[in-house]
Amino acid sequence: MATWQDKLRKIAPYVPGEQPDDPTIIKLNTNENPYPPAPGVQKAVEDYKADPLRLYPNTQALPIVKALAEFYGRKEEEIFVGVGSDDVLATAFMSMFNSDEPVLFPDITYSFYDVWAELFRVPYKQIPLGEDFRIRKEDYYGPNGGVVLANPNAPTSLLEPVSVIEDIIQHNPDSVVIVDEAYVDFGGESVIPLIDKYPNLLVVQTFSKARSMAGMRVGYAIGNPKLIQAMNDVKYSYNSYTMNHPSMAFAVEAVKDKAYFEQTKAAIIATREETARRLTALGFTVLPSAANFLFVSHPGVPAEELFAALREKHIFVRYFKKPRIENFLRITIGTPEEMERFLEETEIYVRKKNAV
Amino acid sequence: MATWQDKLRKIAPYVPGEQPDDPTIIKLNTNENPYPPAPGVQKAVEDYKADPLRLYPNTQALPIVKALAEFYGRKEEEIFVGVGSDDVLATAFMSMFNSDEPVLFPDITYSFYDVWAELFRVPYKQIPLGEDFRIRKEDYYGPNGGVVLANPNAPTSLLEPVSVIEDIIQHNPDSVVIVDEAYVDFGGESVIPLIDKYPNLLVVQTFSKARSMAGMRVGYAIGNPKLIQAMNDVKYSYNSYTMNHPSMAFAVEAVKDKAYFEQTKAAIIATREETARRLTALGFTVLPSAANFLFVSHPGVPAEELFAALREKHIFVRYFKKPRIENFLRITIGTPEEMERFLEETEIYVRKKNAV
Repeated sequence: MATWQDKLRKIAPYVPGEQPDDPTIIKLNTNENPYPPAPGVQKAVEDYKADPLRLYPNTQALPIVKALAEFYGRKEEEIFVGVGSDDVLATAFMSMFNSDEPVLFPDITYSFYDVWAELFRVPYKQIPLGEDFRIRKEDYYGPNGGVVLANPNAPTSLLEPVSVIEDIIQHNPDSVVIVDEAYVDFGGESVIPLIDKYPNLLVVQTFSKARSMAGMRVGYAIGNPKLIQAMNDVKYSYNSYTMNHPSMAFAVEAVKDKAYFEQTKAAIIATREETARRLTALGFTVLPSAANFLFVSHPGVPAEELFAALREKHIFVRYFKKPRIENFLRITIGTPEEMERFLEETEIYVRKKNAV
Repeated sequence: MATWQDKLRKIAPYVPGEQPDDPTIIKLNTNENPYPPAPGVQKAVEDYKADPLRLYPNTQALPIVKALAEFYGRKEEEIFVGVGSDDVLATAFMSMFNSDEPVLFPDITYSFYDVWAELFRVPYKQIPLGEDFRIRKEDYYGPNGGVVLANPNAPTSLLEPVSVIEDIIQHNPDSVVIVDEAYVDFGGESVIPLIDKYPNLLVVQTFSKARSMAGMRVGYAIGNPKLIQAMNDVKYSYNSYTMNHPSMAFAVEAVKDKAYFEQTKAAIIATREETARRLTALGFTVLPSAANFLFVSHPGVPAEELFAALREKHIFVRYFKKPRIENFLRITIGTPEEMERFLEETEIYVRKKNAV
C-alpha cells in the first residue's frame, strides 16, 4: 500500500535567480529593468482606493486586454493575460501540447520549458543549437507535438530574423508554434503580425522587461481566437481569477505611455552597446545581443570564478552550470552607473588573472 | 496525422458567478464580503510607491507567510501562499494526488474539485452526501488517492464538527486529506491545530471571504513542512513569482487588524441569522449555515424562477442547475440594507405564487 508520502509529486523545480533584499547589491542577475515603471503607474497607485478589493476582479483581465488590443491593433479575443509570461506559457503548454509526439525546443533556451513539460507530462525533445548557438531551422521540420522558440533566445541573447521563425511555422502546419518574445522590445522584430497568416502561431510577451513591471506579474499571449479560447478554457479550469485588481489598475498605464517605453528601451540599448564594447576590449567574447542582457565568455577567465568574484563585491550576475554554456555569464543591463561598477570590478579581476 | 486543433485541450471549465460591472446591482452571488478591507489596507495603499514594481517580488510571498505564521502561531515552513485558494488547491491537487486510486470528495461540494481532477488527470470519485446533505464519514474509509472536504461545505453551508473531520483523517493515514476552510471564520472551528497530530492533513483558507480581499487574490495552505515543500516544488515548476508586490504590501494589513476582522465577521453572522429567521417565516427551508451565505429552498416556489425574478430586480443570487440541488438558491450575506431589499423582493414573489 502506498503511503501519503508516496503520493507526493517528485519534481525538480526551476531555480530562479537570487532575489537579495540588500539594496546595496548591484542586481544584474534576473533581467529586470533598471528604470522605474512609467510615471502614469505611480499616478494610478496614488489614485487607487482599497474598497473594490472586497470584490472579485474581472476574470478576463479586460482592462489589460483592451489596452493591449489598442497598443498592438489586435482584437480582444486574440489576447490572453496571465500572472507573468510564466503563467501564460504554462497555460499554453497545458492547452496546446496534447499529443504523444514530442514538443521541440532548443537545448539552450529558457530553462522553464523542460520543467513545464515534466510537470504536465508532455513528451519533449531538446534540439541542440548550432555551434554558434543559433537555431537551425531544418531541425524543426519533422513531426512533433509542438514547437517552442524564444526569440531573442535566452540566455544567449541572439535574435533570429522573422524569416527564420516564419519558415519554421510554415513547416509546422499541424502543430502549435509558440514564440516567446519576452525580450523582443530590445531590438527584435515581433512576429505578432504573422498571426493573421498562421492560426497555429502563439506569441507570448511580458510586462516584466521593457515595461519595468516584473513585480506586477503580468504577461500575455497574442494569437488566433481558437488558441486564446483553448487557453481560457484551461485557465478557467485552474483559477477563474488570476489577475488581481491592482494589477489591472496599474498595468494599463504602462501600456499607455509609449514615449516612456521608447525612451527607457533606447537608454538600455545604448548602455548595452557601450558595455559590450568595453567587455570586448577586455578580451571577452560578447554574443551580439538583441535583449536587455549580454551573454559573454572569456578565454582566460573561468566564468564561475568571475561570477564568484563579482558576488564578493556585491555585484550579482547569472551563471548557469550547464553543458555548453558553463563558461558563460549572463549580465543584465543596469543603469550606466551600475554597469560602470560592474566593468571596474570585472577589469580588476581580468587583470589579476593576467588575461588582458 | 493530427492537426494543431487536435492537439488543443478539450475541457469543461468551472463557471464562476457573474461579475456585473453595474454598481446598482445587489450582488449576493459570489460570497464576497459586503464590508471593505481593514483600514490598514487603505493606509498601505496610500503609502505604496510604484518604483519597486520594476523588481521581481519575493518568490515565497514571505511578508504574507510571516504575518500568517504569527496570526496562527505556526512555523513559516508550514505555510504556503498562492493566488487565491483556487491556486493553492490546484497546486495541492498537482502535488499530492499522484496515484492510480481515486481521490474522494462529496457529490455536492465546491464545483472546482472535479474540474481540477480532470485538468490534472487525477482519478476521482464523487461520494453522495446523505439525504440531509451531511458528510457520512464511513464513506471515506476505503483505499483512495486522497480526500478533499470543504468545511463548512459549499454550497450547502453545513458545518461538520472537528470530530467528524478528525475521524476521516484518522481513517486515512496513507493519503493526504485536504480540508478547504474557505468559510470557517463564519462560525466553524478550524482543524489547523490537528496538523501537529497528522502530517497528512492540509488545511486551506483564503483572504477572499472573512478578510474582504477577493480582489487581491490571496489564499494559503497550512500543513506539515513536507506537504508545503511538495507544493513549493510544484509551484516553482509552474511559476516562480505568483504573488505580486502589491498583494504582499496590502494583504498583510488584513491579517494584522484582528479587531476589524472580528467586528465584520460578527456583523455578517448577525445579518445571516436575521435573514435566515425571516426566510423561514416566509416558508423557506434554510439549512443551518456556518458560512457567509445561506442555502435555501421553498416547497411552493421553484428556485430557478425565483432566481430569475430577483435578477429582473437587479438582485443577483446563485443558482446551480445540478442534480439534488436544482431547487435551492445560494444567497450571499450582504449588508443589512442589501438583505432588506432582497427579502422585500423575495416576499413579493413568494406572495405572488400564493406560497405563504
